[in-house]
Amino acid sequence: MHTLLQHIQKVTGNHEIGDDSILPFFETKTFKKKGILQEEGKRCSSYFFVVKGCLRLFFTDHHGAEQTMQFALENWWITDMDAFRTERQSAYTIQALEEAEVLTITARNYELMLAKLPVMEHYFRLVYERAYAASLLRIRMISRMPKEEIYDLFQSRYPVFIQRIPQKVLASFLGFTPEYLSELRKKKVKKKDKS
Amino acid sequence: MHTLLQHIQKVTGNHEIGDDSILPFFETKTFKKKGILQEEGKRCSSYFFVVKGCLRLFFTDHHGAEQTMQFALENWWITDMDAFRTERQSAYTIQALEEAEVLTITARNYELMLAKLPVMEHYFRLVYERAYAASLLRIRMISRMPKEEIYDLFQSRYPVFIQRIPQKVLASFLGFTPEYLSELRKKKVKKKDKS
Repeated sequence: MHTLLQHIQKVTGNHEIGDDSILPFFETKTFKKKGILQEEGKRCSSYFFVVKGCLRLFFTDHHGAEQTMQFALENWWITDMDAFRTERQSAYTIQALEEAEVLTITARNYELMLAKLPVMEHYFRLVYERAYAASLLRIRMISRMPKEEIYDLFQSRYPVFIQRIPQKVLASFLGFTPEYLSELRKKKVKKKDKS
Repeated sequence: MHTLLQHIQKVTGNHEIGDDSILPFFETKTFKKKGILQEEGKRCSSYFFVVKGCLRLFFTDHHGAEQTMQFALENWWITDMDAFRTERQSAYTIQALEEAEVLTITARNYELMLAKLPVMEHYFRLVYERAYAASLLRIRMISRMPKEEIYDLFQSRYPVFIQRIPQKVLASFLGFTPEYLSELRKKKVKKKDKS
C-alpha cells in the first residue's frame, strides 16, 4: 500500500479506501538535495505530500536573506496555501533539504478528488485542524517566548527536526543567529551530560 | 435562516441544508463586554461561532501581560484548537471585546455532527484551509516584517479590526507598544489627509 494511503487510514480510521481511487489524482516526482519544487513569484499550481525526505518553505526578505517558515517531513503536506487555493503567484520557495520523493496534485485534481471522495474531505479536515493548531503554537513561540524556551518547546514537539535540519536553516526558522543556536546546543548537551 | 446556516451555504455553495439538522448540536450563549467565554488553565470543552460581536484569544506571559493571539468577528470560529481536540486544559482565555452572541458546541457534539453530516466535513475543511493560510500570513508578518509594513498589511486585509478593536489590544496583537501604534495611526491619518 502507498505511504499516502497508510496515512489516510491512520488519520481517518477508514480502511476501505484503496490505492486505485486516490493515486490517479497524483503524480510522483523526485528531487535532488537543494532541488526546487516551487519558486517564489511563479504561479502556485501544486500541493506536495512528502513520501520521503525533508522540505522547507521560505521567502527572501528585504535584506536578501532566506527566511524559513515551515518544514515538511514524511507524511506532511506543504504548499503556499493562500496561492494554491487562488492559483496565484507563490510568495514562497519550496526546496528539498534532502533527496526527496513527493506526490504532487494540481488545484483542479484536488477539487475533483474532494468532490468524488468524501473520505478525503474527512482526511483533509483533520489534517488542517492539526496544521492550524500547530501554527497557533508557532505564533505563540515566535511572538514573545524567551529564546531558550522556544528551543526547548520545539525540541520536545519535533525532536526529528533537530536531527535532520541544517543548523543554519533551523536557526532562521527559530529566529536565532546560527551562532546563538550553536551556543545553545552546546549548553544543552553539557547539561544532559551532567544529569 | 440562522447566521451559521447562511455562512455554511456561502462557503460550501450547498443550499439543501436546513436549520433543523445543524442547530440542535449547538447552544446559544450571550456575553457582556469583557465577559469570559473560556479561561486559561480550565478544561477546554467548547468551540465558538460568533453570531454577533468581537472576541479575542490571549494568554498571560511571564511578566503578567496579556498577549492577544487571535480575534474573531461575526462568522468566525474560535477556540484553543489543540486543547479542544484533545479535551485538555486551555492555554488561552477567550474574552468578549463587545457584547457578544455565540453558538457553542462541545467536542462530543462536534464529532457527532461531522459523522452525521458530510456537508460539515466539507465546510470545516474549507474553514480550516483558510484559517491555516491566514496563520501563515500572520507568522510571516510577526517574524521579520518592518513594523509599518505589518500595520499596512493588517489594515488592507482586516480593515474592520482596525475600527472595532481597542488600541491597546490591537497593539499587543501586532507586537507594538500602544504609544507606537498611536503615533503610527496619526502619521497614517496625516498622509491620507494630504493625498
